[in-house]
Amino acid sequence: MGLRDEILEQPAAVQRLLDSAPTAFAPISAALRARRPRFAVIAARGTSDNAGIYAQYLLAIRNGLIVALAAPSTITLYGAHPDMTGALVVGISQSGRSPDIIAVIEEARRQGALTIALTNDPDSPLAEMADHVVDVRAGPERATAATKTYTTELLAAALLSSALDPPSPGETADLARLPDLLSAALTVEPHARELAAAHAQRHRAVVLGRGYSYPSAREWALKLQELALVAAMPYSAADFEHGPLALAEPDIPVLAVAPSGPELEAQVALLTQLKQDHGARLLVISDSPAAREIDGGLALPDGIPPWLAPIVEILPAQLYAYHLTVARGLDPDHPRSIKKVTETR
Amino acid sequence: MGLRDEILEQPAAVQRLLDSAPTAFAPISAALRARRPRFAVIAARGTSDNAGIYAQYLLAIRNGLIVALAAPSTITLYGAHPDMTGALVVGISQSGRSPDIIAVIEEARRQGALTIALTNDPDSPLAEMADHVVDVRAGPERATAATKTYTTELLAAALLSSALDPPSPGETADLARLPDLLSAALTVEPHARELAAAHAQRHRAVVLGRGYSYPSAREWALKLQELALVAAMPYSAADFEHGPLALAEPDIPVLAVAPSGPELEAQVALLTQLKQDHGARLLVISDSPAAREIDGGLALPDGIPPWLAPIVEILPAQLYAYHLTVARGLDPDHPRSIKKVTETR
Repeated sequence: MGLRDEILEQPAAVQRLLDSAPTAFAPISAALRARRPRFAVIAARGTSDNAGIYAQYLLAIRNGLIVALAAPSTITLYGAHPDMTGALVVGISQSGRSPDIIAVIEEARRQGALTIALTNDPDSPLAEMADHVVDVRAGPERATAATKTYTTELLAAALLSSALDPPSPGETADLARLPDLLSAALTVEPHARELAAAHAQRHRAVVLGRGYSYPSAREWALKLQELALVAAMPYSAADFEHGPLALAEPDIPVLAVAPSGPELEAQVALLTQLKQDHGARLLVISDSPAAREIDGGLALPDGIPPWLAPIVEILPAQLYAYHLTVARGLDPDHPRSIKKVTETR
Repeated sequence: MGLRDEILEQPAAVQRLLDSAPTAFAPISAALRARRPRFAVIAARGTSDNAGIYAQYLLAIRNGLIVALAAPSTITLYGAHPDMTGALVVGISQSGRSPDIIAVIEEARRQGALTIALTNDPDSPLAEMADHVVDVRAGPERATAATKTYTTELLAAALLSSALDPPSPGETADLARLPDLLSAALTVEPHARELAAAHAQRHRAVVLGRGYSYPSAREWALKLQELALVAAMPYSAADFEHGPLALAEPDIPVLAVAPSGPELEAQVALLTQLKQDHGARLLVISDSPAAREIDGGLALPDGIPPWLAPIVEILPAQLYAYHLTVARGLDPDHPRSIKKVTETR
């Protein structure tokens, strides 16, 4: 089992979590009904932090909850005791072993806040510390770079949102279609391999996304950094216009995640400007032919519900990062310097 | 008046805001005494967002408040109405004209939350929308890249924290010493110019900071991106160890902001590892000779109080970015493609 196998396993991993959801989330739904949170705090690092950003958007849009992404060092380094009374506090960690994430949950529990761990190890210290645990059921992830734990963490966040406010019949159908959508997204692999081979000499990149697709841009950039050793700079498209737009030039390709949704029109306008005025070379992951045809693109299947788009749209990005790594003569299964469990305090 | 003049003007700008503080913050102190917030929400973009991250750390550590950095597109693109009841909601914008920041304040005010604008234009739409306005008194900022509006926004955040919980006599003395500390930090300019001249061919960089210095790393990277067109990737040192550490190599210099404080020891250990094991070339802004002498460094004055360090430590970073821009044959006063007011929605 290497990284590519784990990428290809994601439809099955997502199906496993969906199958377990009614049982796994029943006590969480009950707890959330008993005390509706005033706001939420999410503690996570690295790939899991990108899942946390998705949760930040989803819980704001779907549940009307303000979500703070915790700065764990305020607690671990500075001894802060920020008031989490009445909050829902979620720790996300594939290993469940990051001491600083555990410290946030510990402080929240001490204060009596409702705490939930989303983790791939239900026996981990994080799981033991939290009131409730969601096993994301990705199965053993042997590759150092996280892929199937990321998509299952995203789905766990969507299921947590559904536990707060029950899904409509349409949303329930959206969830059930996810494994098929993920399988369809994986069919882009030959095209991703071909583009990656052509891009093997690229050492820098800007990666853009907006709204729900902002965490996808960050996660794509992280995979490019840790696997293909590309100096990839992720931005929300809005922040990019506030300064780093100066970087746009033919030598710095622009990668973008731009699915159909309320942010598509502005993204297409920005990408067209980058192509026409700055000569930027583009690679756009989108279901919209108009977005892909500004320059280069990787196709997403039709009919992705915007609220679940991050779970689908990251797959072409993972495949591109994998094949770019291979094309650059690097080992995707053993990237240099990365530890699977990082014990920052 | 060019960018360099505005960098050098910062001790005076900070003095102006300090002088105005007793009057400017009196009504805010009264409002915060009348209704102590449960948590805080900060809306900002670009450089101002980095000031918001400082506020996130400071309000957690000094005031025990959880701070959420708003995702404005949840409101502007997705029509969300996240519950800000009982929150302190702060909009930070030098121009006060970013529609998405105004939209967050408008939504908060509609919900009856306490709203405050930190802006360099007290007649701006943002200022008109908020319950209270702090004029950061940076004076006209003509250069496109924000410098003195950044440091005054940071100070405004520190004064907001002081309005929530009055400063101790020691903290009051810390604030009064700021202009002198900023003047002392500027004396590093000849060294910054010399290093920048030697680094003119560097096109990529990793920029690290942790805790209070994380926003400094982000702001340094942003200046390098928008002025010197360097592909600069900022990380909290903790997140960097979760994957992007793979990027460390002699070709990608590592810049770091590592002042004395609880995060110094871990930062020195990481930087030493990057130097010894990865051959990384370092440039460390620090008051600690041990941190600077791992490889290259720019000195900070002694005696900077950790809670105010971001206001001081960004000055050598600005000077380095300015001189690197000049050394690369670019125009620091008219960087390409950046608009002073960015009207993202």
